[in-house]
Amino acid sequence: MSLAIKDDEVDIVIGALRSDLTIFMNEWRPMFSRFHLIIVKDPDLKEELKIPEGFNLDVYGKPDIDQVVGSSTSILFSGYSCRYFGYLVSRKKYIISVDDDCLPARDPKGFLVDAVAQHISNLTNPATPFFFNTLYDPYAEGADFVRGYPFSLRGGVKCALSCGLWLNLADHDAPTQALKARQRNSRYVDAVMTVPAGSLIPISGINIAFEREAVGPALVPALKLAGEGKCRWETMEDIWSGLCVKVVCDHLGLGVKTGLPYIWRTDRGDPIASLKKEWEGVKLMEEVIPFFQSVRLPREATTVEECIVEVANAVKERLGSMDPVFARAAKAMLDWIKLWQSVGSSSSRSSAV
Amino acid sequence: MSLAIKDDEVDIVIGALRSDLTIFMNEWRPMFSRFHLIIVKDPDLKEELKIPEGFNLDVYGKPDIDQVVGSSTSILFSGYSCRYFGYLVSRKKYIISVDDDCLPARDPKGFLVDAVAQHISNLTNPATPFFFNTLYDPYAEGADFVRGYPFSLRGGVKCALSCGLWLNLADHDAPTQALKARQRNSRYVDAVMTVPAGSLIPISGINIAFEREAVGPALVPALKLAGEGKCRWETMEDIWSGLCVKVVCDHLGLGVKTGLPYIWRTDRGDPIASLKKEWEGVKLMEEVIPFFQSVRLPREATTVEECIVEVANAVKERLGSMDPVFARAAKAMLDWIKLWQSVGSSSSRSSAV
Repeated sequence: MSLAIKDDEVDIVIGALRSDLTIFMNEWRPMFSRFHLIIVKDPDLKEELKIPEGFNLDVYGKPDIDQVVGSSTSILFSGYSCRYFGYLVSRKKYIISVDDDCLPARDPKGFLVDAVAQHISNLTNPATPFFFNTLYDPYAEGADFVRGYPFSLRGGVKCALSCGLWLNLADHDAPTQALKARQRNSRYVDAVMTVPAGSLIPISGINIAFEREAVGPALVPALKLAGEGKCRWETMEDIWSGLCVKVVCDHLGLGVKTGLPYIWRTDRGDPIASLKKEWEGVKLMEEVIPFFQSVRLPREATTVEECIVEVANAVKERLGSMDPVFARAAKAMLDWIKLWQSVGSSSSRSSAV
Repeated sequence: MSLAIKDDEVDIVIGALRSDLTIFMNEWRPMFSRFHLIIVKDPDLKEELKIPEGFNLDVYGKPDIDQVVGSSTSILFSGYSCRYFGYLVSRKKYIISVDDDCLPARDPKGFLVDAVAQHISNLTNPATPFFFNTLYDPYAEGADFVRGYPFSLRGGVKCALSCGLWLNLADHDAPTQALKARQRNSRYVDAVMTVPAGSLIPISGINIAFEREAVGPALVPALKLAGEGKCRWETMEDIWSGLCVKVVCDHLGLGVKTGLPYIWRTDRGDPIASLKKEWEGVKLMEEVIPFFQSVRLPREATTVEECIVEVANAVKERLGSMDPVFARAAKAMLDWIKLWQSVGSSSSRSSAV
C-alpha cells in the first residue's frame, strides 16, 4: 500500500451483534492485523465475545457505554447502532467499519480484495462532486479525466466518505429480500465514482470508511425504528445517517465516493419474518427523501456540528409532527452533537476518554 | 434481443470522415445489418466513399445537405458535425451514432459486445435520475434497488440518451492525449448508470444513442472551434450538444445513462500536432461549464425546441460578448430549431424530406 498515511491513523470499528467473531476475525486477519480495532459489543448481547488472538484491539461493552454516555442521552446504542459508540471514542483520523457478517471478497481474477487498502485509497485521493467523469475515478491507475472536463475542477476536493459494495447477498430491504430470496449479486463492477453534489444516495453502513476528523459527527445513530431487530434489512439508521452526511458534504464542499471495495456478505436472518416489521422503514423513506432533497443549510453553518444541528432543527420542524420517530431522531441528533463535543471527539488532539 | 422495439424503429447514423468504410462496416456487420443506416459524408471529403455490399442504407453528401438545408443557415455540417444532418433527416424513433474509427469491443470474457442491443436496452428501460442506486442499473438482470431507495421513485422515467464508453483509445482532450500518448483504457466497467439530475456530464459523441422523438432537437451542432480539424480531440461540438441535452433532460424530467456499451476505438491523428489548436476548446470549457451549471429554464418551456431556444438566448446574453464562438453557437442553435421544424423532423409522422 503506497499511501501517504500511517497505520496508526486508522481505527477499524466493528459492531459485534453475535458473540463468536472467530471466523470473521480470522478471515480478515491479513487486512486488519496492522491496524487498531475497536470492537463494540451490542448491549443487548448477553454472551461473552469470542475473539481470536493476535490483534491490537479494544473491546467496549454495555458498562463502557453507560460510563461514557451516561443516562442523560436519548441515543440508543443497541443493535447495529453500537458501532457509533466506536466512532465516538475513536481518536484516529480515519475510521473503517464493516458488519460482522461480511468476509473479504475476491475480484474476478480470484484475488482477495483488500477492502482496507481500497477504502484508504478512496479517502486519500480527491473526489470530484462538481462534474461527472464518464471514465469513473480519474485518479485510478490508467484513468484520467475525459475530454470536456474543465481543468479548473480536475484538482477535486477532499473525500470524506467511501462506500463499498457487496457481493453475494446484496443490501436489499426486507420486501425485496423476501421477493427475491435466492437472488445473489455476482456482478463485480470495477469502478469507484464520486456521487455528484446535490444527488442523494442510500448509504449502507455495511462496508464504509470515513475521515472521522472531517465528518465524524455527521454519522449519527438517530433513526431507530420501533420494531427494529438484528437484521440489516430491518434497519434504517445508516440510511438516515448517510443522508445527513451527504447533505453536510454537499454544503461543505466535501466528496462522497461509492463503488469499490466489495465485501462478501453472508446470510443472516429470515426476510419473511422481517417483512412484518420492515414496512415501517420503507414507508418512512417516502417522507424522508423529499425532506433531505429540499433541506438547505444556512451559510453560517460552517462546521459539521453546526450543520447537523441545523438538519436536526429542520427535522423537528418539518417532520416532527408526522411520526414520533422523527421527533426522536431530531432529539438524538442534538444529543449526539453534545455527546461528540463532551466526549471530546471533536478534535483528534483532545484528551482520551 | 428480447426488446419490445422493432428493427425499423432504429436508424444507425454514421458520419464518414474518411472514404474507406470497408473495415468499419464489415466489423460491425453482425450488429448493423438488421437496421437501416444513414451515412453522411463529411462535405470536406473529396474522394468517393467505399462501402461494402449487403446493408440497407442511404448515403448523403454535400449536394443533399445543400438541397435540404440551403444557404439560409449558419450551421456547418463539416467534420464530425456531418452526422447531425443524419439526425435531421431521420424519421425513426431511435438513433444510434458511432464514430467511423470505432470497432466492436470484446467483454472481459472475450465475447463481442453488441453495442446496438445494449444502447436499445438502455433507452427502453427506465432511467432513475432523482435518487442514486449504489448497485448501478436496477433494471439489469440480477440487479435491483437497494435498501433505502424510495418505492415511489422505483418506476423511473424515460431514458432519452445513452452514452457508451471506449476501450483502447479513451476520449481525452489533446493535452491529455499528448501527455499520455501511450496510455490505453483497458478497464471494462460492467455497469450502466443514470447520471443524476442536476449533475452535468461531458457527453462524447463517439458512441451514443438517443430517442430522436424525445430529444432529437437538443443534439445540436453549435460549438464550432475556429481551428477544428478531423480529430475528436480537436472538437467540442459534442460536449456542447451534450450539455444542452442534459440541461433539457433535467428540465423535462428525462434520463441520461452512461456506461455500457463499450466500443473499441482505434488511433487516428497526431495529438502533438493537435495540441497547438486544442487549447481553444479547453479554455472555453472554463466559461461553458459554469454557464450550463447555472442556466435555469422557465416553466413555460415544455418542449425540447422551446428549451433549446431558451438556452440559445441565454448563451447570447451571458456568453455572447466573451468570445465570438459563443455568439455563433447561439445563432446556430436557433437556426437548428428552425431547420428541425422546417425539415419536418419534429414528428416521426410528418412527411419525408
